[in-house]
Amino acid sequence: MTETRWLNDEEQRSWRAFGLATRLLLDRLERDLQEAAGMPPTYYELLVLLSEAPDRTMRMSELARWTHSKPSRITHAISKLEQAGWVRRQHLASDRRGWLAVLTDEGLAALRAAAPRHLESVRTYLIDVLSPEQVSQLGDISETLLKRLLPDI
Amino acid sequence: MTETRWLNDEEQRSWRAFGLATRLLLDRLERDLQEAAGMPPTYYELLVLLSEAPDRTMRMSELARWTHSKPSRITHAISKLEQAGWVRRQHLASDRRGWLAVLTDEGLAALRAAAPRHLESVRTYLIDVLSPEQVSQLGDISETLLKRLLPDI
Repeated sequence: MTETRWLNDEEQRSWRAFGLATRLLLDRLERDLQEAAGMPPTYYELLVLLSEAPDRTMRMSELARWTHSKPSRITHAISKLEQAGWVRRQHLASDRRGWLAVLTDEGLAALRAAAPRHLESVRTYLIDVLSPEQVSQLGDISETLLKRLLPDI
Repeated sequence: MTETRWLNDEEQRSWRAFGLATRLLLDRLERDLQEAAGMPPTYYELLVLLSEAPDRTMRMSELARWTHSKPSRITHAISKLEQAGWVRRQHLASDRRGWLAVLTDEGLAALRAAAPRHLESVRTYLIDVLSPEQVSQLGDISETLLKRLLPDI
């Protein structure tokens, strides 16, 4: 068994503050979005992706890949969005096992109604609180973390 | 209605990378801790707090305050930890409505067994990936965010 390398004081300070800040921030954004639009952030993200896709249409497998989510998670989310009338599913013409998700007009309207308030939360609790320099540092730090995290999914 | 202030390119880059990186990182740490110790990070955090308290004992209301959690969340977590034999509850002598949570010997052993592996995950996916300068930047950024987030709980 290898020896445990404990965190030094500065690492400990950073990790504790980061752990608490991210938990509180994600809770806050989730609560605001739920109140403003009746949807959790993961659903919001799917609507954004679909709204930016050609014909507002993507394969379910693409949605999973782009959000780095398990396919089962996407299937579950899309059927909830379908129940809300915001997305409809259809078979791929070329492959009966493949499914497409299509953003409906109602889904686009729901997204457009939710966007300004979601953005306002992101500004209020993250972007506007930081200096432009810190915003850039946070972007660089996050991209560094993603390089380590992404191969492991 | 005020005008929507959209994010500029750099803010957008930072927010998108941060949102994805934190989701993947928290998922990863949670999965590792669940595998290593059969507990989610919120339970781990409670055991750490109790282990550092005098007589390994804290009032439930203190646990809620220290973790910035709703009392109902703490009550739920503590009864799960009680079922596992890691914590026991007892009435405050001075106030029959007040409850104390006490870390048991089994709870301390479970924490000591989990700690090295949890720390290893935090190192592998966060601390060791960043330069010492980035660790400090992330600490400062997180503390800035906490100043904004904490009054709102």
